[in-house]
Amino acid sequence: MRVDPNVHPTVGNAPDGTILTSAPQDTAVDRAASAARRVVDALLRTDRNNANLERVAEELDSIAAHLEEHAPEVQERLIDMWHGEGVTRHDPVTGPENALAPPLVLAGREDGSVEGVVTLTFPYQGPPGHVHGGVAALLIDHTLGVANAWAGRSGATAQLNVRYHRPTPLFEPLTVTGRLVRQDGRKIDTVGEIKTADGTVCVSVEALFIDKTVPRPR
Amino acid sequence: MRVDPNVHPTVGNAPDGTILTSAPQDTAVDRAASAARRVVDALLRTDRNNANLERVAEELDSIAAHLEEHAPEVQERLIDMWHGEGVTRHDPVTGPENALAPPLVLAGREDGSVEGVVTLTFPYQGPPGHVHGGVAALLIDHTLGVANAWAGRSGATAQLNVRYHRPTPLFEPLTVTGRLVRQDGRKIDTVGEIKTADGTVCVSVEALFIDKTVPRPR
Repeated sequence: MRVDPNVHPTVGNAPDGTILTSAPQDTAVDRAASAARRVVDALLRTDRNNANLERVAEELDSIAAHLEEHAPEVQERLIDMWHGEGVTRHDPVTGPENALAPPLVLAGREDGSVEGVVTLTFPYQGPPGHVHGGVAALLIDHTLGVANAWAGRSGATAQLNVRYHRPTPLFEPLTVTGRLVRQDGRKIDTVGEIKTADGTVCVSVEALFIDKTVPRPR
Repeated sequence: MRVDPNVHPTVGNAPDGTILTSAPQDTAVDRAASAARRVVDALLRTDRNNANLERVAEELDSIAAHLEEHAPEVQERLIDMWHGEGVTRHDPVTGPENALAPPLVLAGREDGSVEGVVTLTFPYQGPPGHVHGGVAALLIDHTLGVANAWAGRSGATAQLNVRYHRPTPLFEPLTVTGRLVRQDGRKIDTVGEIKTADGTVCVSVEALFIDKTVPRPR
């Protein structure tokens, strides 16, 4: 379910299941980012001796050169990113235009929490066959920010306390959740988890956010 | 300075400045990963209307299909990754073969710390013009693991407590450091920071590691 993009969706004004991240669209840039994501993954998976990696390197460099040729200055691009295109299209967790993002899709729940399911592959590996602990922190940190917005608040992370209960597996669906639990003036306490499909908690976090924002470029 | 790859370098057996991560090599796979990194960045920078993104999407999908065609099964690939190729070639922070990695290069210091300098760009953005808080956590978490190894220990992250002192800027050199500060049996306490070039601390962490490892696939 999608809501009016001019109204910021919160648990008070939007229904259960509201998607809070940017869904990939059938646009050239989203298709290109999705294909780039596939390349990043396949580069880690492919046989180093059988794939024609010399040619792949040349072709990728030539694509990058074409894209760079049409890139505006950083300051100009920053203004477009933050004004024209929607704030959740570029981030490294949910952004469909960012090939680093798995991407994670998050929905708002009636009980005030946000939740998404994601399966991670080789690019996100830490210990053998498992998710990098820092990648888990990245996914939850971002999810907590979205949880705050769903609760009608916004803020910058001041403290992020992550506990690792057991290794988080690659190649199986993980549920990432977040929920604002307390507010005291500008202080916001938010918690989150990463669980496997059977409900086993792999990673949990408690975070403190302070209600302040970095100004948008203009 | 590089050391004998058969001896795990530690502050006790290797000189100040020893590089502890895998330096990019002049091989096809490293050139391809480096070019893929450039594509990921340029996709966020390029003008959405002037670049030929339709064609870029098609070409990237065709490259991915070629690489996937030559990819072995996941289990087989995992064995190669962890036995044949060196453990630091694939991770999402320092791995030259992983296009998600900036990559960060870390050196061991005589005083027991490890240190690296990295400049981050659009793919790593959180607040406008600044590094995503979760990306900062990812970089430091990984750095602490390398710091433990430099001190002759290894372990899995049990707790990672991250403090954000001020927004961390994109597009300027950041110094990432880590150092083992205490050991008590299997418990290892390690601290780290991200600083700007003038020494301003943006992010600091204290972490608890437990000396246990995930078995390698075989």
